[in-house]
Amino acid sequence: MNVIVEYSRLQTFLNVAMAVVHECRLRCTEDHLRITATDPAQVAQVETTLASDGCESFETDGEVLGINLEKLDDALGFASTGDLVLLELNTETRKLEIEYDGFGYDLGLIDPESIRREPDIAEVDFPARIRVYGHRLERGIKGCDLASDHTRFEADAESGEFRATAEGDTDDVSIRMDSEDLQTDIPEAVSSLFSIGYLTELVDPIENDTEVVVKVGDEFPLTWFYELSEGNVAVTNFLAPRIART
Amino acid sequence: MNVIVEYSRLQTFLNVAMAVVHECRLRCTEDHLRITATDPAQVAQVETTLASDGCESFETDGEVLGINLEKLDDALGFASTGDLVLLELNTETRKLEIEYDGFGYDLGLIDPESIRREPDIAEVDFPARIRVYGHRLERGIKGCDLASDHTRFEADAESGEFRATAEGDTDDVSIRMDSEDLQTDIPEAVSSLFSIGYLTELVDPIENDTEVVVKVGDEFPLTWFYELSEGNVAVTNFLAPRIART
Amino acid sequence: MNVIVEYSRLQTFLNVAMAVVHECRLRCTEDHLRITATDPAQVAQVETTLASDGCESFETDGEVLGINLEKLDDALGFASTGDLVLLELNTETRKLEIEYDGFGYDLGLIDPESIRREPDIAEVDFPARIRVYGHRLERGIKGCDLASDHTRFEADAESGEFRATAEGDTDDVSIRMDSEDLQTDIPEAVSSLFSIGYLTELVDPIENDTEVVVKVGDEFPLTWFYELSEGNVAVTNFLAPRIART
Repeated sequence: MNVIVEYSRLQTFLNVAMAVVHECRLRCTEDHLRITATDPAQVAQVETTLASDGCESFETDGEVLGINLEKLDDALGFASTGDLVLLELNTETRKLEIEYDGFGYDLGLIDPESIRREPDIAEVDFPARIRVYGHRLERGIKGCDLASDHTRFEADAESGEFRATAEGDTDDVSIRMDSEDLQTDIPEAVSSLFSIGYLTELVDPIENDTEVVVKVGDEFPLTWFYELSEGNVAVTNFLAPRIART
Repeated sequence: MNVIVEYSRLQTFLNVAMAVVHECRLRCTEDHLRITATDPAQVAQVETTLASDGCESFETDGEVLGINLEKLDDALGFASTGDLVLLELNTETRKLEIEYDGFGYDLGLIDPESIRREPDIAEVDFPARIRVYGHRLERGIKGCDLASDHTRFEADAESGEFRATAEGDTDDVSIRMDSEDLQTDIPEAVSSLFSIGYLTELVDPIENDTEVVVKVGDEFPLTWFYELSEGNVAVTNFLAPRIART
Repeated sequence: MNVIVEYSRLQTFLNVAMAVVHECRLRCTEDHLRITATDPAQVAQVETTLASDGCESFETDGEVLGINLEKLDDALGFASTGDLVLLELNTETRKLEIEYDGFGYDLGLIDPESIRREPDIAEVDFPARIRVYGHRLERGIKGCDLASDHTRFEADAESGEFRATAEGDTDDVSIRMDSEDLQTDIPEAVSSLFSIGYLTELVDPIENDTEVVVKVGDEFPLTWFYELSEGNVAVTNFLAPRIART
């Protein structure tokens, strides 16, 4: 592996994975770098891909590296937005050599076998599909957090609205997340309950004006997909539902 | 009650009350919304008024609502400066329905009878009356906090100066709070001692260029009055003096 | 002592001393104010000088004042950048009277004899001498902090490079601190180990574009010199080496 990529793009790619795990396997294929991971409780999944086209230089050989994401994040912390970062695997020392602007950091790797196995990303048919802006998704999640630690995502076939709602002990919240200028496809009314703690982490790397494609079903998992860094970083998250308290 | 008001104006009105209490009675008369409250130790009082003229729409019926100010503040936390906020009392559920830009929050109310009774705002004759800017009042209070936990407000008839002074174990402070371009009326020298902790809370909602009318006496309470939000929010604070340590 | 000096200049002079000690002796000679101090563990030294030419008004009489730097810093905390600060010794009360813009603070002094004696600033011949920018010195120190609590400063005679390096339990770092547009004079390769904790404190008052002259030797102390505030504040730091762990 010998990859040169702009700092801010690399950081975007890694941030998405850090929302779910601290350690991960980094797969270096001929087309991309990819991290697929699930959190320790197996409730949330992430798949994040950095395309080779988004890199200045890209040579890989199918390596799988075990990475401590927080250490790597620290090592990149002195780079400026425009800096080009070289990532090179030293096969003798089994360290990942990171270089930018006179700054060299040799990161000790983890045995990939010691890291939790990557999840299968299931192909599921979702009945409803809604496009939302990042800032409205975030407002829905954080707004519900005021009243409860769970939020219900509701898609209404009649009104075409997509809402986050929560019922607390004293207060209730209902926040519209879809926008008039983005398409929705809601053939039937669906509704599922999710943990706000997980959603808060997953929504964090999304930018305000990012368009997110959310797919939901009735008492069903959700998945959402978005792109960052001019399409060079592609992200899919998957979240298991909670059982409604009755 | 059905009131529509710009977010930043509503927030200004509430901030002033939050400096003194966490729970309060909100009185909805035909002219205004008003909160009058005293802190648990009964040392500081506040009266804050939001004029109906400062609202986009204003229908009230003499209601008295028991409000948890921190919950209400949280529920407004997703609004932007220009947002119009609808406050509507749902008389069936006894909840306050808050709405802005697709965000709906139903706030559970508190029984007003369970909240500390509102104080009588005493009509008192104060011998001295000084106009000061918010930023100079704040500097006087925080400056004295360096040396002591009490400050003496002194009005000097001869020099026309209004000062905050403090004597600590090792250091002394004296800070001029009046300004040359604002009127003072100090017919006799007066001086009173106050707790800096209370003053710090009370001065916090005041803006840097707000003109505050301060009335003081000799070993006497103080009161100050100011307006915010183009005169639509009017505030009176009242603070009891401490006994000088001798 | 009766000195008038612009706030930001005075603050710059004091910040440098606060990086090493909390209490110090302030020497007021006819040419300057000077603080020379060593930290309690006697590992780091500072000498900081505020030139009389950098002051609006300067009358001194060889006084030596015992100062609590944090109290003095607090007392100056309400000044604005352009404010002129008057420092005047009241010989009767033995307090330092500080005044700016209506703000008066009488600072109790400490008996200078109760403060640790000033170190002798040794005249030492250093084999290597390098000029670096503040921001690159800081990056070298903070970068090494990721991997270890010690950093090795290395000057390489052949390449002319000046580097900070650290070897941690899992990771290694090497950061180039010199710049192509600044002179180095490295007649022989030298290398010494220093505590990052001390270096972090000493580098903090240096500004990004400040040119720092660093002198190093082999398993030897280092000294560095720089000027701030248009040359009116001159600073020398001295740091003892750590013994390499083997």
